[in-house]
Amino acid sequence: MSRSVLLPDPAPRSIRVPVISVDDHLIEPPDLFEGRLPAGLADRAPKVIENDDGTQYWLYEGRTYPNVGLNAVVGRARDTWSMEPSRFDEMRPGCFDIQARVADMDVNGVWASLCFPSLVAGFCGSVFMRSDDKELGLACLRAWNDWHLDVWAGTYPERIIPLQLPWLADVEVGAEEIRRNAGRGFKAVSFPEFPAQLGLPSVFADHWDPLLAACAETGTVLCMHTGASAWAPLPSPGPPFELLPTLFPVNALIAAAEWLWSGIPVRFPDLDIALSEGGIGWVPMLLDRVDYVLAHSASGNESGAWRGDLLPSEVLRRNFWFCSIDDPSLVELRHVIGVDHIMVESDYPHADSTWPDTQAVLDKTLGSLPEDELRKIAYQNAAKLFRHPLPPSDDWRHGGS
Amino acid sequence: MSRSVLLPDPAPRSIRVPVISVDDHLIEPPDLFEGRLPAGLADRAPKVIENDDGTQYWLYEGRTYPNVGLNAVVGRARDTWSMEPSRFDEMRPGCFDIQARVADMDVNGVWASLCFPSLVAGFCGSVFMRSDDKELGLACLRAWNDWHLDVWAGTYPERIIPLQLPWLADVEVGAEEIRRNAGRGFKAVSFPEFPAQLGLPSVFADHWDPLLAACAETGTVLCMHTGASAWAPLPSPGPPFELLPTLFPVNALIAAAEWLWSGIPVRFPDLDIALSEGGIGWVPMLLDRVDYVLAHSASGNESGAWRGDLLPSEVLRRNFWFCSIDDPSLVELRHVIGVDHIMVESDYPHADSTWPDTQAVLDKTLGSLPEDELRKIAYQNAAKLFRHPLPPSDDWRHGGS
Repeated sequence: MSRSVLLPDPAPRSIRVPVISVDDHLIEPPDLFEGRLPAGLADRAPKVIENDDGTQYWLYEGRTYPNVGLNAVVGRARDTWSMEPSRFDEMRPGCFDIQARVADMDVNGVWASLCFPSLVAGFCGSVFMRSDDKELGLACLRAWNDWHLDVWAGTYPERIIPLQLPWLADVEVGAEEIRRNAGRGFKAVSFPEFPAQLGLPSVFADHWDPLLAACAETGTVLCMHTGASAWAPLPSPGPPFELLPTLFPVNALIAAAEWLWSGIPVRFPDLDIALSEGGIGWVPMLLDRVDYVLAHSASGNESGAWRGDLLPSEVLRRNFWFCSIDDPSLVELRHVIGVDHIMVESDYPHADSTWPDTQAVLDKTLGSLPEDELRKIAYQNAAKLFRHPLPPSDDWRHGGS
Repeated sequence: MSRSVLLPDPAPRSIRVPVISVDDHLIEPPDLFEGRLPAGLADRAPKVIENDDGTQYWLYEGRTYPNVGLNAVVGRARDTWSMEPSRFDEMRPGCFDIQARVADMDVNGVWASLCFPSLVAGFCGSVFMRSDDKELGLACLRAWNDWHLDVWAGTYPERIIPLQLPWLADVEVGAEEIRRNAGRGFKAVSFPEFPAQLGLPSVFADHWDPLLAACAETGTVLCMHTGASAWAPLPSPGPPFELLPTLFPVNALIAAAEWLWSGIPVRFPDLDIALSEGGIGWVPMLLDRVDYVLAHSASGNESGAWRGDLLPSEVLRRNFWFCSIDDPSLVELRHVIGVDHIMVESDYPHADSTWPDTQAVLDKTLGSLPEDELRKIAYQNAAKLFRHPLPPSDDWRHGGS
């Protein structure tokens, strides 16, 4: 196997509007953990191993974690996409190398990016949380966060929004990490949309309040990435693979409904919740439905599950942020949802990715919007939510237009 | 306990537009099965029994089935709603008596109604399908269908759209029943959205093709009522009750996605599928998403899960019909979904019901629509789909309007 599976570099696309992508991924490079764990733990950090069959895996605490091919498809011909494990030298370097990534962002007209982990960490750090040795797990999690801040975000601080992984195994330690990380520049945290599916306390308990209070106090955005809890709504056996990604937005829908009814965004009115890779086309349903159910509830607003003076739909519009990848219906839906709470993603380097044509996709789908609305959705809302710098101009890469 | 829990009869509402409600329910009356089973089976038909505590249950094959209070709340004060079993004399007679039902439809300005069963049958006849004695089960199912056609629909044939229950335990017998029932006037069949959740073959097998072919050939509309398979997408323990009805439309969303990817509506282009109590606010998400996933699928259109020349979104708009109860966003969404495939429901006598104010709800939500679109959504689409007579005029009840 070799890099021959990779397509040639694409030419830079013309820029219709700068983009801040709030859902991309990084593939952890093999040297991520080097020099980042305490001496007594360093030799037990995750490491990349070569199998006899030419594939590569991460090894951690005796378990193996492949880099799934479909999670690193950018720059590869469609007929090479698969669920099979992928080698680093079969990936486009932008998957794991920040210099190459920023170059790929420039090609694509993406000013800034929020990058989630890949499978060796779990989208929300669940692999480290599940460590047999919790001290080692916390050390690995901190190493991941340190590397993310120092290397991934630190090399080009204006181009990457720092996203931390949370320590889920102890909510008080986790809350302290949120505060410490906010102090050193992290703006967001990846959090499971259904903690109970990871064996953790349910969102309907008040277990998570200390960590959520730390997020609300520090302005750390809670990013719930579809699938981070390894649960999907698949009631019927035997579906074709395509059903799973078709239903990605349903995780966000159910998560939004659960978190709303949990009362968390009422208890923490300043908590910002971003539904990463959650889509936008279902939001009208939830807006309509939550208020209707409250009005038809046996218990009603006084003694029942809903507290506070606002309607559930008002809290949904206040605390939650939605993410579009390529949704033609957004043009009709945007005012129902709220133009100020819609952001976009390019999902580099997954199979869903619009790279390198994110600009063309946006232009095709949203090009007819008024310029102020287009700019809010493409980057201004994200810059405001994540307190990230705006691009100096539309041609920051000196050559784009 | 007594009928004192019932509120006084409401005055007839003024009619903004005639309504055909495509999702209501009937509560099976105690005498439903009388004289409708073969002599050797008659004494084993379901029967209503009185408990010592004053509640009533259906008894069938040694198992009990209550009428849940929240499924018969019309005409009762909010503070009497509950999940507790309900007595027939605590229900509004329109729940189980067709004369009273049609009077209640008149009050509400509902010209015609499609009525699903209640728990003694299961929304799609699953109780009979699960009978220990399958001969008895089939006899009960036929008795239910006979009663529905003779009494419920037969008393006022212009006011009730005949809906049959399917025989799910044997697909060939079930297909024959569909043909026989179409010949005697049934226009629709209640079918589980996720058969596998009832222990039956998955929608992704071709097991159901004979029954579906019978539906397509006879124009029998497949009505998939949310919850008919007793499955709900609830990944987190401990939710308040309100989460369940909030997510009713998600069952329809997942069902539509599964049935699309199953290829069934491609194999049976004439099959009409109505997503009863499924809502409409999520449809833009699925329309956008299915085509996107196909375009980003590793296998693509040629060798993969999707067959035929149409896009998945085109098949969704062709074969599926959507149902609104009170969805303010419908005004913005209707052209994305397709005005010709949206219908309405009043959900009498469930907690969700808009009775007796369905007219006011429609006027508030949809009153601003062009008159031709309003009339399509309120009754013309349903009349066309179910081949049901239109109202002779807007004041069929002589005094309304």
